[in-house]
Amino acid sequence: MKAAVLYSGGKDSSLVAVILQRLGYQVELVTANFGIFPSWKSASQSASCLGFKHHVLRADPKIMEEAVNIILKDGFPNHGINLLHKEILKQAAEKYQVLADGTRRDDRVPKLNLNEIQSLEDSKSVQYLNLAGWGHKTINQLSKQLFNLVREPTNRDNNSDYEIEIRCLINQVEGKDTASKLFPPHIQSRVTGWRKDEQK
Amino acid sequence: MKAAVLYSGGKDSSLVAVILQRLGYQVELVTANFGIFPSWKSASQSASCLGFKHHVLRADPKIMEEAVNIILKDGFPNHGINLLHKEILKQAAEKYQVLADGTRRDDRVPKLNLNEIQSLEDSKSVQYLNLAGWGHKTINQLSKQLFNLVREPTNRDNNSDYEIEIRCLINQVEGKDTASKLFPPHIQSRVTGWRKDEQK
Repeated sequence: MKAAVLYSGGKDSSLVAVILQRLGYQVELVTANFGIFPSWKSASQSASCLGFKHHVLRADPKIMEEAVNIILKDGFPNHGINLLHKEILKQAAEKYQVLADGTRRDDRVPKLNLNEIQSLEDSKSVQYLNLAGWGHKTINQLSKQLFNLVREPTNRDNNSDYEIEIRCLINQVEGKDTASKLFPPHIQSRVTGWRKDEQK
Repeated sequence: MKAAVLYSGGKDSSLVAVILQRLGYQVELVTANFGIFPSWKSASQSASCLGFKHHVLRADPKIMEEAVNIILKDGFPNHGINLLHKEILKQAAEKYQVLADGTRRDDRVPKLNLNEIQSLEDSKSVQYLNLAGWGHKTINQLSKQLFNLVREPTNRDNNSDYEIEIRCLINQVEGKDTASKLFPPHIQSRVTGWRKDEQK
């Protein structure tokens, strides 16, 4: 059984990949890219450190333009990011029958609601799963157990979230100030390999 | 790291036990019993077939009486079952720091909402997790891959859900007709061992 995990190089998507691998799935990590900036590189490095196959899912830049228009109109990124995530899941569903991402219980975005999940599964004949039953404490504890992690301020060279390409496009259209207001500086954890004795 | 899984002998709670075990937890399976009927025996057999430690969590029969009063008043079992589940989780939290159950995305009962989960985790300093991000298709497919399963009509000797003791108590109080109306006959899947080559 093959399964694709939408992958950022962070703890959550790394953990769901490990769970599926240990249940017997052939896991492939997939990072979306809209052709604005090669933000997939950081995720690709983490995937390689963990020994997973990694693919870049090339997506239409028009979807990113639509998301950025929504974000600029809303004044906050949630709806735009959810749009990107839903489009990428639909695109990945053309190639894989089992799709996963690292959405956890306390995540707010990107997050599909139950109707959207049902619609994705039914319309595309796929199975979708995530970590919605798992909280951040459990995920942090397990990640420390399983992975070597680097905590650092997010920048465009160490992060593969949708945020990076959104910021790049907003910088082009509106200038840096707008992007910084929508995405204030924050600290992230990036997976850089297995903890000793953990690699299967 | 020790983790307790509230265990019925069914697919869902067996799968979450396997996930936690393969992530490195020392998993102990726990089945609640309210002293009305020894309904834990079926779960204990399944646990033994899979090679997990199994414990019976002895709970106060008064909690079951309270649940049955709610169920008879409501005319349907959901609120009463949720009450039992929340009380059992609180009791298990006295002994374990990581608690799990097999609640999946499409389950309606027993199911804690996000506020109840937050309250349990904060008041008892525990981590709680379940399969709320996983749908029945994925769980069925994985269970077939991992476990030997028996599909059969539920009765009081092959099922360890709260339902069995609820029925027994309702039979005593109100007679068989009432219990049968609240819990119509249904088919269940019970885990009877590992599929060949799956045992770790």
